[in-house]
Amino acid sequence: MKIGVIGGGQLGRMLSLAGTPLGMNFAFLDPAPDACAQALGEHIRADYADQDHLRQLAEEVDLVTFEFESVPAETVAFLSQFVPVYPSAEALRIARDRWFEKSMFKDLGIPTPAFADIQSQADLDAAAASIGLPAVLKTRTLGYDGKGQKVLRAASDVAGAFAELGSVPCILEGFVPFTGEVSLVAVRARDGETRFYPLVHNTHDNGILRLSIASSGHPLQALAEDYVGRVLDKLDYVGVLAFEFFEVDGGLKANEIAPRVHNSGHWTIEGAECSQFENHLRAVAGLPLGSTAKVGESAMLNFIGEVPPVAEVLAIADCHLHHYGKAFKAGRKVGHATLRSADLPTLKARIAEVEALIGKC
Amino acid sequence: MKIGVIGGGQLGRMLSLAGTPLGMNFAFLDPAPDACAQALGEHIRADYADQDHLRQLAEEVDLVTFEFESVPAETVAFLSQFVPVYPSAEALRIARDRWFEKSMFKDLGIPTPAFADIQSQADLDAAAASIGLPAVLKTRTLGYDGKGQKVLRAASDVAGAFAELGSVPCILEGFVPFTGEVSLVAVRARDGETRFYPLVHNTHDNGILRLSIASSGHPLQALAEDYVGRVLDKLDYVGVLAFEFFEVDGGLKANEIAPRVHNSGHWTIEGAECSQFENHLRAVAGLPLGSTAKVGESAMLNFIGEVPPVAEVLAIADCHLHHYGKAFKAGRKVGHATLRSADLPTLKARIAEVEALIGKC
Repeated sequence: MKIGVIGGGQLGRMLSLAGTPLGMNFAFLDPAPDACAQALGEHIRADYADQDHLRQLAEEVDLVTFEFESVPAETVAFLSQFVPVYPSAEALRIARDRWFEKSMFKDLGIPTPAFADIQSQADLDAAAASIGLPAVLKTRTLGYDGKGQKVLRAASDVAGAFAELGSVPCILEGFVPFTGEVSLVAVRARDGETRFYPLVHNTHDNGILRLSIASSGHPLQALAEDYVGRVLDKLDYVGVLAFEFFEVDGGLKANEIAPRVHNSGHWTIEGAECSQFENHLRAVAGLPLGSTAKVGESAMLNFIGEVPPVAEVLAIADCHLHHYGKAFKAGRKVGHATLRSADLPTLKARIAEVEALIGKC
Repeated sequence: MKIGVIGGGQLGRMLSLAGTPLGMNFAFLDPAPDACAQALGEHIRADYADQDHLRQLAEEVDLVTFEFESVPAETVAFLSQFVPVYPSAEALRIARDRWFEKSMFKDLGIPTPAFADIQSQADLDAAAASIGLPAVLKTRTLGYDGKGQKVLRAASDVAGAFAELGSVPCILEGFVPFTGEVSLVAVRARDGETRFYPLVHNTHDNGILRLSIASSGHPLQALAEDYVGRVLDKLDYVGVLAFEFFEVDGGLKANEIAPRVHNSGHWTIEGAECSQFENHLRAVAGLPLGSTAKVGESAMLNFIGEVPPVAEVLAIADCHLHHYGKAFKAGRKVGHATLRSADLPTLKARIAEVEALIGKC
């Protein structure tokens, strides 16, 4: 079976590492000449709107999936004429737009911060007054890793903020005094079977995920599964989906979904029986899902900007390196380490060891 | 770091799957147009004696390693002029020739079945008389998976046997009434640090490995480590080496070594903290070795001739599929499954499930 992937970055790379042992081959459509997945599959170097190359991809593969959600709707619609596409165009339409996404949460009874659609500075002024400050202004589409957003703390931040984000459709979200950020990675098969990984505690730096720690017996696991299950069923979703929540007053408020394998699920490569990458491929290929159970205690640390010296990373016990083969650049995710330890105190000691290496970078 | 591999079969493929996350790239030199590792690296399609292409490989890579031990000595010598080669030419010279191999065991005080060098039918007649029957006649080089050997049970089997195996240099080995076959996979770093995986119980069918089960606290572990350590130090070995033993009267008799990652170590991908493939690459690249400790109870079953339907393999709990992407052909290793279970009774139940699928092939 040959799988087409829109995007050829590290997620595509890890999909191929998981799928090749299942007998799958991969083709990645990505305009970047140095797309790092190309070491592990065919690279169709083309723009995401290039219909000739989309057609070529569709003809070569058995199905198409995505590495990122900001794929133009036209690309998905075009491909869907020729080849099965998972997740569906509808799932991508919702997930790529914060307004559609938050509105869906509301319709499904999933708590979420107060939010308002912002099409102008006047909309923003009105919403800031009704929602109150602090609040976060975010572009409806194309935001990631803290990009395309601005925290509004005082009236002076509100003035001109719509233009600062490019005068594009935005959403204003009430600031949530959260005690923690967690995500739930789930997978849903073509037949509707759904499995959930354990909730993961996430720590961000400047909007970029830095550390994820997989939980055991988290008191909010069942609640999170209920919320995520509602979304998966609503979208008749196929594949892996990640759902980020704020922990607020012992409950959860929905932040956002990612209709794809997700950075907060990278720990599953070593830390779960079957990784998010393999489970995504099993789901889209119509194969039985794998176990989402944990193997030991597990955490993931991102390498941002550069990977510490490989020999030093590998010298840390319980440590598994994932080097993406990308050029080093400030703010860029270029690798991660998964730690898998027998118990939590050991895991925490190992996290400190990796953090010390990152600090030396 | 770019690694050159002589041979581009499933071992090369699994080396790349292990090394790519370490930031390594791969080039495989293999004459086969359909070498299955080419999905995961550059394929230099050339004969093993083709000096132009060997030179090209040497220029492209940082070091060279091997997927199989029957590499011509001239190939190794040629490459060694330009690029580091691990394991060394001397290790390959010994390991590829059963006479040198057995003589080394004897020199190092490692028990081995009685053996004799056979250069003619007259040598064979004399050796059969002194060693006794049954005995096994094997070509000194190029044998694998039970090929290039003949069991001699009666005098009538001895007559003409030398010609039957092609009138090439052979070795006659006394038949050992073994109670089991075990192997020890070890890894030795450039600085001499050595680590051992747990002993593995192996079951063969017609000379082809069928099932490997990793042991826990095997009473012969320390003895096996002693024997294997002698060989590793003698050869100043760098990389993974597998050592196959017969279990005889509660002790061990040396059968043979393989100077490479080995089929009886495939279970380590999921069943050990750091796989034999990653540890081989760590060793040859001069990186710190990884832990050889087991993760749960583990076994490996080979898929020979064909891979059962993927959906049925993946439906088995605790089961991890490794499809080599090779054309199916009787007697050919085309994939394997690793089982990793919490306890031995569960593992045995899972083995039976996979065996039932193989039986349906």
